[in-house]
Amino acid sequence: MIEHGIQLAHLREARIGFDEAIFAAGKSVAQLDAIVAHAIEARARRLFTRLDAEKFHCLARAHREALDYDDISRTAILGKRLRPAGPARVAILTGGSSDVAVSREAARTLEYYGQANVHIPDIGVAGLWRLLDRVEEIRPMRVVIAVAGMEGALPSVVAGLVPGVVIALPTSVGYGVAEGGRAALNSALASCAPGLLTVNIDNGYGAACAALRVLDPQL
Amino acid sequence: MIEHGIQLAHLREARIGFDEAIFAAGKSVAQLDAIVAHAIEARARRLFTRLDAEKFHCLARAHREALDYDDISRTAILGKRLRPAGPARVAILTGGSSDVAVSREAARTLEYYGQANVHIPDIGVAGLWRLLDRVEEIRPMRVVIAVAGMEGALPSVVAGLVPGVVIALPTSVGYGVAEGGRAALNSALASCAPGLLTVNIDNGYGAACAALRVLDPQL
Amino acid sequence: MIEHGIQLAHLREARIGFDEAIFAAGKSVAQLDAIVAHAIEARARRLFTRLDAEKFHCLARAHREALDYDDISRTAILGKRLRPAGPARVAILTGGSSDVAVSREAARTLEYYGQANVHIPDIGVAGLWRLLDRVEEIRPMRVVIAVAGMEGALPSVVAGLVPGVVIALPTSVGYGVAEGGRAALNSALASCAPGLLTVNIDNGYGAACAALRVLDPQL
Amino acid sequence: MIEHGIQLAHLREARIGFDEAIFAAGKSVAQLDAIVAHAIEARARRLFTRLDAEKFHCLARAHREALDYDDISRTAILGKRLRPAGPARVAILTGGSSDVAVSREAARTLEYYGQANVHIPDIGVAGLWRLLDRVEEIRPMRVVIAVAGMEGALPSVVAGLVPGVVIALPTSVGYGVAEGGRAALNSALASCAPGLLTVNIDNGYGAACAALRVLDPQL
Amino acid sequence: MIEHGIQLAHLREARIGFDEAIFAAGKSVAQLDAIVAHAIEARARRLFTRLDAEKFHCLARAHREALDYDDISRTAILGKRLRPAGPARVAILTGGSSDVAVSREAARTLEYYGQANVHIPDIGVAGLWRLLDRVEEIRPMRVVIAVAGMEGALPSVVAGLVPGVVIALPTSVGYGVAEGGRAALNSALASCAPGLLTVNIDNGYGAACAALRVLDPQL
Amino acid sequence: MIEHGIQLAHLREARIGFDEAIFAAGKSVAQLDAIVAHAIEARARRLFTRLDAEKFHCLARAHREALDYDDISRTAILGKRLRPAGPARVAILTGGSSDVAVSREAARTLEYYGQANVHIPDIGVAGLWRLLDRVEEIRPMRVVIAVAGMEGALPSVVAGLVPGVVIALPTSVGYGVAEGGRAALNSALASCAPGLLTVNIDNGYGAACAALRVLDPQL
Amino acid sequence: MIEHGIQLAHLREARIGFDEAIFAAGKSVAQLDAIVAHAIEARARRLFTRLDAEKFHCLARAHREALDYDDISRTAILGKRLRPAGPARVAILTGGSSDVAVSREAARTLEYYGQANVHIPDIGVAGLWRLLDRVEEIRPMRVVIAVAGMEGALPSVVAGLVPGVVIALPTSVGYGVAEGGRAALNSALASCAPGLLTVNIDNGYGAACAALRVLDPQL
Amino acid sequence: MIEHGIQLAHLREARIGFDEAIFAAGKSVAQLDAIVAHAIEARARRLFTRLDAEKFHCLARAHREALDYDDISRTAILGKRLRPAGPARVAILTGGSSDVAVSREAARTLEYYGQANVHIPDIGVAGLWRLLDRVEEIRPMRVVIAVAGMEGALPSVVAGLVPGVVIALPTSVGYGVAEGGRAALNSALASCAPGLLTVNIDNGYGAACAALRVLDPQL
Repeated sequence: MIEHGIQLAHLREARIGFDEAIFAAGKSVAQLDAIVAHAIEARARRLFTRLDAEKFHCLARAHREALDYDDISRTAILGKRLRPAGPARVAILTGGSSDVAVSREAARTLEYYGQANVHIPDIGVAGLWRLLDRVEEIRPMRVVIAVAGMEGALPSVVAGLVPGVVIALPTSVGYGVAEGGRAALNSALASCAPGLLTVNIDNGYGAACAALRVLDPQL
Repeated sequence: MIEHGIQLAHLREARIGFDEAIFAAGKSVAQLDAIVAHAIEARARRLFTRLDAEKFHCLARAHREALDYDDISRTAILGKRLRPAGPARVAILTGGSSDVAVSREAARTLEYYGQANVHIPDIGVAGLWRLLDRVEEIRPMRVVIAVAGMEGALPSVVAGLVPGVVIALPTSVGYGVAEGGRAALNSALASCAPGLLTVNIDNGYGAACAALRVLDPQL
Repeated sequence: MIEHGIQLAHLREARIGFDEAIFAAGKSVAQLDAIVAHAIEARARRLFTRLDAEKFHCLARAHREALDYDDISRTAILGKRLRPAGPARVAILTGGSSDVAVSREAARTLEYYGQANVHIPDIGVAGLWRLLDRVEEIRPMRVVIAVAGMEGALPSVVAGLVPGVVIALPTSVGYGVAEGGRAALNSALASCAPGLLTVNIDNGYGAACAALRVLDPQL
Repeated sequence: MIEHGIQLAHLREARIGFDEAIFAAGKSVAQLDAIVAHAIEARARRLFTRLDAEKFHCLARAHREALDYDDISRTAILGKRLRPAGPARVAILTGGSSDVAVSREAARTLEYYGQANVHIPDIGVAGLWRLLDRVEEIRPMRVVIAVAGMEGALPSVVAGLVPGVVIALPTSVGYGVAEGGRAALNSALASCAPGLLTVNIDNGYGAACAALRVLDPQL
Repeated sequence: MIEHGIQLAHLREARIGFDEAIFAAGKSVAQLDAIVAHAIEARARRLFTRLDAEKFHCLARAHREALDYDDISRTAILGKRLRPAGPARVAILTGGSSDVAVSREAARTLEYYGQANVHIPDIGVAGLWRLLDRVEEIRPMRVVIAVAGMEGALPSVVAGLVPGVVIALPTSVGYGVAEGGRAALNSALASCAPGLLTVNIDNGYGAACAALRVLDPQL
Repeated sequence: MIEHGIQLAHLREARIGFDEAIFAAGKSVAQLDAIVAHAIEARARRLFTRLDAEKFHCLARAHREALDYDDISRTAILGKRLRPAGPARVAILTGGSSDVAVSREAARTLEYYGQANVHIPDIGVAGLWRLLDRVEEIRPMRVVIAVAGMEGALPSVVAGLVPGVVIALPTSVGYGVAEGGRAALNSALASCAPGLLTVNIDNGYGAACAALRVLDPQL
Repeated sequence: MIEHGIQLAHLREARIGFDEAIFAAGKSVAQLDAIVAHAIEARARRLFTRLDAEKFHCLARAHREALDYDDISRTAILGKRLRPAGPARVAILTGGSSDVAVSREAARTLEYYGQANVHIPDIGVAGLWRLLDRVEEIRPMRVVIAVAGMEGALPSVVAGLVPGVVIALPTSVGYGVAEGGRAALNSALASCAPGLLTVNIDNGYGAACAALRVLDPQL
Repeated sequence: MIEHGIQLAHLREARIGFDEAIFAAGKSVAQLDAIVAHAIEARARRLFTRLDAEKFHCLARAHREALDYDDISRTAILGKRLRPAGPARVAILTGGSSDVAVSREAARTLEYYGQANVHIPDIGVAGLWRLLDRVEEIRPMRVVIAVAGMEGALPSVVAGLVPGVVIALPTSVGYGVAEGGRAALNSALASCAPGLLTVNIDNGYGAACAALRVLDPQL
């Protein structure tokens, strides 16, 4: 792979417990085909993020068939699927159905690492009873990932209701002052709920990795 | 008053129903003394906003005594106090006690115009039960002014719970990304709650004037 | 509809008097078809916003035919049209013909709820006489929605001329510093006209919902 | 003056017709005393801007006495006062009395160069009749400097009413989104009035110099 | 034209001396065809700006033939061409050939009003001798429009060299911090050259209208 | 305490395991004295943050004596000190000695809740060997709070070296583009290290609360 | 070439030692064809930057064949290739494979001027051992260009490890707060590593020109 | 010094050739006294930056006497002064006398390391002849540090005139859009002059360290 200018960090796995996820957005089809071929040869598992459907469909046929691709989250998984052991310790909450692309990136990352999770959709704060109806289900969770665009109030409300680790996952859903997700991000950062954490806008992969750091002290 | 470069809009009252509020922040003591003297002479009522305690204490003694001054809201009222008629049709909600300076500017403006109002303090969304305990009290209100700094989630939650006019009044309370109040303002603008309205950061006077426009069709 | 990850807030209608508007921008054709099918089955009325013509034309034929679609405002209405009762109590003012997409979203929302409204076009402040010629027509209105992009001066001027509720509806029309609508939004927020209210950039739906909260105390 | 690190551009006067104005904000008292002494010795006229009262009072007594100081505009003039010849060809309009510090910097600069000007105060657009009452007085002017903070709508309205050169002079008066003057500046730049020009926030000196370039082709 | 929601300001011409320019960016082909038809019928002259080639080619054939279209500046002129009288009193300077689209919008506007102008290209400050070679040609001009993207230093340098009115016309040419033209705009506003004026980014039409206000006191 | 407009959330403790921290920045001395008096009477423990030394010294003497005040972190603790049980599971890393005010707010919050922690100072990335010398000490920690101002690279580097939960705590230390802490915050959010989490600028209290959520599943 | 409005700065070469690079982004195919033709005729060498593949393929066939085009960096070289003399004195470091488009623009510029360079890829700070493994190779370099998007920590870390000139070259690679490259740029500017320099986002050409100024005092 | 939480990077000197400069802005008097005492004991030289006069005067008397303090640049030097060897190879250019505080920080840093430099003041681009008069003096310099606030055009113009390394040092001098120095910084980054480099706003120390990296390959 030296000819494609990529030197994968094989060592990272040994250091912090994560194997490499491939951020496909800035890579060419040739680079991605090389990465897949290399991983197949090495019998390695791989997670791809930000892999657009168009780019996926340009990959070599054998590579496409080897990948478990999900077009909503734009993720692909190469290699053996792990079977989640035990009940879900992570809940993923979404404010609206427009946030699903991002929340599913988080869910797919957790699945790649064999962590069960539950998805609780459409509980944005504009209709508070929807969240309140589900709060007993959410409270026992070790980690809650609260996904929200627009004004991003959901993570603040949730962090005031449950004792576990709450990770805000702001999305770029919105227009006007909400365009690009800054309003939702700033709501998470400025929250008056004690101990709310956040990751970058649309970073479902990062939120899931953070959950993994919480869940597995051996990581 | 021509020598102080001020020409009061005596006519405005006749046009839109508000007499002039004096924004004291950019005015000198000499200018303010002239305005008070002129109003006393004309037996006119006046509302002053953003009048710092230091500046107030520099005014002529007779003027200080003629003014009903409140140092928390930095407002002063000149002239007859109106007696509110009937029960409160406006509720002012605050997220935390740091928002009181702003909420009281709104309350004082309503009082200046003879409108009763109720203040429901300390119901920020980080402790949602505090708001839910009061929601039946809030629901019948014609106008709700929801005052919040930090992440500013309160107005969104309220607008999802009550049918009246909800006006977000963002405050500059906060630090980091919340400094200056932009995060709270953007939360109000980006809100997924239908029909939430907003005014400028710390603009208690403006929120109250908007409430008056709602309440009194004859205005 | 559980299979599409959407849980409609059937309850909201009972709480604040609005039934659900569907924000189509972040939803797939499959999700939208499911929503329409579900509503038809339930004999429910529905308002769709931000529904691009391309997406509309991908919907199932039966659904397209059931929808009253307007391509300028990108809105669609499902179900019985309400007949506005009585004279218009809302005026919608636009600065230029480029603002029509946004102003019509507001008008269509009002129509969906059976509220009559009048549209007064092309009265931007660069030619003040155009506004002044119409001011007597505007003054008796209970609510005025002032739609403006570019420098967004129209709402300030209007709020100084009429006593009713004035809602600024900034648009993203413009280039350079006006691009995206922030200049127009900030003009509305910073206005020296007392009691001017605003909603997010391009949020015609929100401005109309706010008008409904003003008009109908029973809401 | 070499020991104070200042080399005045004696030559500029010959090139573009302006002698040097001294921007006092970033200069020490020692530097300013040296500049005054040097000018007195050279029998040169000088205009100082942004000279705070505290700094002025720290200057050598002889220098203070030689200067015509105005504490509202924070300007000082050294040397002979020119007598304006003929009627005013420049009007300076202000939205509110808080804008006077900036407008007077423009007026003093014009006076330094012997240009007559008229000041038309307190005609902000929130009370449009105040501007309309004065429009016939403004129309014949060769240059109109429209000074405004807050939402800064005045220059746009004026540029739609008069045929002369209109220069927006935005001020930093305001709070919330208006703080620092960006909202007013962007209103001027985004204006739909054709041919409106602008200078930097609070730059009264610059607006006046621009007016001089318009008025005197020989400059 | 009432059916297209457009009410042209026929009166403006009488007030400030400009007839209406049509900002085509936000208008549909149907709206534009209606405007052209109406003007042809009224034997009126018209200037169109921001008219993309695609949109132009969708206009009715008779309308395309009636328009003098320039695809670089995206302007179209309807009606009699005026013959410039006398020598050029306006110079348009450009920093680089990427700025030509904007500078030509200014030139075409001047031509529409019968004002001669000269174009002095490719004299960006990174090669200062190119500007210095032309300075004697520029100095006698009544108005200089200095067009620049990137860091936008050209207007500042020019305003220090010539005594006439200098109008900065910042362009959106650039990348990184220069993207969108804010860096160039801020350079013009922050300039230490006395009396430099500016218009919005890419606003060639506005710069030309401002020049016309300078040139023709009868306007 | 109703007369000071404060209604403490006594219930929150029961919900998410945190008792109330008092954000002193926006509160008056009278409000703070009332809160202390109330807590002493109720034999409650309390943590105060952002309590400036001046404000602290204005409190009633008995209250000052009851508080354990730390002027570097501007925190005060009322009530029994808890004895940390067991070895430290949290490490607090600082880039430079200017970050100590913020890091100590985090440390004091942990101490208030009885959590041991270690402080590893002065290991900014400009001298990488300082961090590498301590990495074995940091690796076994359950939570690492990485405090950094300026360019904020420390959290990214740390998150690539250790498997535990890494929380970036950006500080407002810096000047130019770093002023206010946005550069450091954005570095944390944009980090390529998987699973890095962040809190608001200068929010030592929030980082500690997040650590507590990680450490104590019973919380 | 006068008919295309381009006047190349033939003189610049004599002044600062660089011949002209052609920034193709804002130029039409006709302009570019004219520039190539002119250079071929003059037997001049030329470097083209930001030349998209589509635009390149529209050039005249003879021109395409005369150009050495590289589609990753979007650069083209006209004329004799210089043979680098001696060992590399410049190292180009990249954080990830998405940064290659930018780093290669720098490498191609160096090659155009006959400067050897080495590329050290994929050493982002999230896996610090990758950088540490290569540090002895980097230390003797006269100039190090550190290319990084996302959080942009690489240049700071490198500048703390090597004594040569370190030039940060931030890239626009990233999403959320990293979108457009501002986070990476600000990291470089705010760096606590002494003497780190930076150029604009994605400006590979500029970084290489700066390296040439360092390397060749005769330039 | 462990008791003040400071661990100086004694090792850095060995790595990149710089000994530690002490950024005094965020440090207490006690911390600074400890640093000075420690350095005196170790017979080490030290450079202090951002040391306000008030803070300097609070240091222990023996420490004040041991320091060579300069109140304009707010720098202090401890230990032996080095005698510059040979003629100046660095020129420091300033646009106006307000930039002297920043330029002198650069000069003092160079002096601390024994590098001669020349200061060429007051050559801002608004009076271009001032720069042109000195250009032959500047051209032979190995490094030019161009210091400028306001619109920051000086570095671009200089980089087009001389072949050496040009480092822009933007200052926070200015108001309105120039406030804080962003306009000047962006001018440097967006410059069309090839190979211009920049450091953070007001970072005189950093510009000097970069010059040292250029000058001394053995560093």
